[in-house]
Order: sequence, then C-alpha cells, then structure tokens
Amino acid sequence: MNAYKRYERISVILKILTENPNKLFNLNYFMDLFNVAKSTASEDIDILKSILEKFGLGDIKTVAGAGGGIKYIPINNIDNFHEFMIDICRKLEDPKRIIPGGFLYTADIIYSPQYANKIGEILSYPFQEKDVDAVVTVETKGIPIAMMCARALNVPLVIIRQDNRVTEGSSVSINYVSGSQKQIKAMSLSRRSLERNSKVVLIDDFMKAGGTIKGMIELMNEFDAEVLGAGVMIATKEPEVKVVKNYFSIFTLVEMNEDKETIKMEISDWLMYNMHKNGNNS
Amino acid sequence: MNAYKRYERISVILKILTENPNKLFNLNYFMDLFNVAKSTASEDIDILKSILEKFGLGDIKTVAGAGGGIKYIPINNIDNFHEFMIDICRKLEDPKRIIPGGFLYTADIIYSPQYANKIGEILSYPFQEKDVDAVVTVETKGIPIAMMCARALNVPLVIIRQDNRVTEGSSVSINYVSGSQKQIKAMSLSRRSLERNSKVVLIDDFMKAGGTIKGMIELMNEFDAEVLGAGVMIATKEPEVKVVKNYFSIFTLVEMNEDKETIKMEISDWLMYNMHKNGNNS
Repeated sequence: MNAYKRYERISVILKILTENPNKLFNLNYFMDLFNVAKSTASEDIDILKSILEKFGLGDIKTVAGAGGGIKYIPINNIDNFHEFMIDICRKLEDPKRIIPGGFLYTADIIYSPQYANKIGEILSYPFQEKDVDAVVTVETKGIPIAMMCARALNVPLVIIRQDNRVTEGSSVSINYVSGSQKQIKAMSLSRRSLERNSKVVLIDDFMKAGGTIKGMIELMNEFDAEVLGAGVMIATKEPEVKVVKNYFSIFTLVEMNEDKETIKMEISDWLMYNMHKNGNNS
Repeated sequence: MNAYKRYERISVILKILTENPNKLFNLNYFMDLFNVAKSTASEDIDILKSILEKFGLGDIKTVAGAGGGIKYIPINNIDNFHEFMIDICRKLEDPKRIIPGGFLYTADIIYSPQYANKIGEILSYPFQEKDVDAVVTVETKGIPIAMMCARALNVPLVIIRQDNRVTEGSSVSINYVSGSQKQIKAMSLSRRSLERNSKVVLIDDFMKAGGTIKGMIELMNEFDAEVLGAGVMIATKEPEVKVVKNYFSIFTLVEMNEDKETIKMEISDWLMYNMHKNGNNS
C-alpha cells in the first residue's frame, strides 16, 4: 500500500524535525509527503519519539488543537550534556588561555560550530517551553552561540552593535557603564530589527559585573521588549554582586591568576541544580 | 540477536551524522554503539544513503583506508536549494529594504537561523570536497552565515575584527581601502586565531567592489594562509570589475534605485551554472 517503508518515513521525518528545532509541523504535512493515513503518520511519530528518548537525543512534543502539530525539542534533558560540559570546563582551565589584561581566550571553543551548537542549545534550555520572539546579543564574540541558541528556539537573532556603524536605517542608542572596567560605552540597535513588545532572551559569552547585560536590558526597554531572562556562557565569581539579577551562566570562572598561571573554572550552580533536579546521574 | 531494530539504528546514525556534517566517523563507532557486526552497520549506512538520495537530503560519503569511515555531506546537489533561493531572491527585492545611503536591509534574512543555515550550506558547496582548515569572516553581519558555512564544512570559524578592540592577545592589523566608499579602514586578527599555512575560505554577506575581501586576503597573507576561495551572499553587478578575482556569490544585486524605490536581484551566474551543470530541472 505505502510507497515508502517505515524506516524511510521515520528517517525523513527525523531529518526535517531536527533541522527545524521548535518549529511546529502539522501532521498533514507528513501525511501528504508520504501519502499515508493519519494513523500511520501518528505511529511513525510515536516510534521516533521513543527512539529519541531512548538515546537521549531530544524529544518530540505534541501541540493539540486546530493549529497544532508536532515539534522537535533539542534539549529535553540537560543531563545528556553533562559529559560535554565537564569536557569544556576542563578545556577552559588551560592556563595558556590567560591573556595579559585579565582576559580569557575562548575563541577556539565559541567559534567551533560543534561546541557553539551545544552551548547554544544549553543556553536555550530555560526557554524551551516559553513564548520567545527573539534572541538578542551584542557584537561580536557572543554571536555564534547566540545564533545557535536562536536556532534551537526557532526564533530570529538580533545583533546589537557596539558603536554607530549601523547601516540599517534609524537606530536607538544608549550609553552604558562597563561594570568592571568603569568605561562608558555605547550600543545601538536599528529600529526595524525588533518589533515593539517582543519577548526576548539576552545571550552573551562572558559576564563580569553585568554592565553589558544591564545596558542590553535598558536598550530593550526602549523597544518595549519584555526580557524573559539572560544567559551567558561564563560568569565570573567576583564580584559576587552583579548589577543584574535575572541571569544564569553555564560556567563560573572562580579564579584566574596571571602570575601563578592558574585558572579555576566550575560548572555553574544553575546548571548543577538543573542536572540534579532531573535526578539523573548519567 | 540485535537489541536495536533497524529503524532505530538508522534514525540514530542519521541524527549523529547530520549533527556533525563532514565529520568522519569510523564504522566501528556505530558497530560498538549498537553492538552489531560490520556487515549490519554497512547495510544500515547503505540504506540511509539511499534514503537521503531519494529525498534530496544530502549524501553519505565513504572514505576508504585505515583512517577512513563515513561522513555526511549536507549539500551534494545544489538543485535541491533552487526553490529556496528563488524565494530569498524575491524577498530581497522588496523595496522596503532600501535604506538611505544605498544600503540594503538583509538582517531579517541573514540573522534567521533557518535561512542562515541554508545560505551557509550553499556557500560551503564549492569546498565540500576540499581540504579546508577554517572559514574566515569579518565582523559583524556575515558572522551568522559564515558560522553555518563553517558548520557544514566541520571546521572552525575565524572572525576578523574591524578595529583594535581585540582582547585576544597579540594581533596582526592591516589597513585596506573600502573599494566603493574609498575609505581607509583597519582589520585585525589575533595571532592565535589561525595557525600558519592554513587553507581558508573567506565568507561575507555583501560585496561591492571587493575591497573588504581584498583586505581579508592581504591579512591572510600575513598568516601564510592559502585562500581557497571567497563566497559572498550578495555581490553588486556594478562595478563589474572587482578588485578581487577568485570569488562567487549566491545573488547578484543588479540595481537598487532609491528614487524609484526598486530593487532588481538575480540568482548569480555562478549558481545558475552549477544548477545547470547538474542537469536537474526540479
């Protein structure tokens, strides 16, 4: 009866879903694609869901109702990323990463597509079930991980510029104080980049006192945007009191000593809590 | 005998391969994962290869020899992207994209993860079979598509900075003349971002006279890098003579008239040629 075998249908559905994380597909789409009945398509999806579960490769969620369908959730269990994060944490402790001036070299990690993809997915985790309109970052280093986070959430990326080199029409600029360096800087965003009243997630690669995130929040206010939260890859332990509250990080930079050439990096409390919460020690 | 059913094994192999384009996996990896014999794993791969072919979803290449294995090629037939590119081309012709000063608004396309992913894959097409060490771009707007191109080639991304805001240790800077605006600008790259004698692909979002790409080539010379080619999403038709030779674009901006509020965009000759070459009119 069916022109396509089950393993063919399942493979193609998987390819389409995983290439479009969080995008809703009506069941009719797959029924038409393979010329199969609703019951067959549903069965295919159920089988696929159990495969993904079994191998810790994400999840398929069903959204009920007329406008409903199915969508792929890339990170349903953060524990599946445990080993990866321990690995990155160790890599980040390499003393060769210390750059004079108290900077940490991370470009080899955050510009690696495979790593950036996983880091982006982890940063998307708290927002998987939320109604997000856009992921917002500020140039330059956070862009790759913010892009992958936007991909995992199936929403556009918005890039704030750090100067007035904006060639995207009229823009809104704000000044902000870089918390740790006490420097006054500017950031700008073109008017048409973000619709008013959008729900946004802020992403950056590194945070010390939180001045940049605070500036981003202020700029978002100018767009009447609602900030659902802020995620950074690395936050420093010091200063313990940050100028922003609603943020989480994947890693905590506990200490970096230029003279002794030592770096102490840890999995953040936020991540430890979420892994613990799932009660899985794998 | 086998704990996993064929459709389970095939799905998992597909998920792993497509998440890691161009990454070589030894067959032993899958034999161990599912506890199956070599013949079974080979058969799984063959079936998967024919599914991907049938649905135009990429290809699986086999690399022979001791260090060999299999790898997923996301774009084996550029014709599969034809419809997508016509769609983007039409979108780019929307006169609302004209920004005073002769700029074209493209952020909604190049910052969309789904679009950026496909554009990045198309830009990776000429280099799929080449030995590439890194994809190089210059901040800011080209980063998302360059990241996706790097992902398709399974190589790191390298981001050149447009000023001296480099906090990545010692860097090399060059001055270059922005061809169309006749402005002198600077670009910098930290020493540790790119190993000497690397084979690189240059990616950018937009090209007029080619001054930026020329500057990138000059900077690459400072790193003794071999430039395999340069790919841009959009190149303008005028000036017809560019300051660089070895480049290709996906789209050609034939004309943009601010007064008449018209944009004329075409699929580039390069792309037309490659689609024609495959002799597929789908």
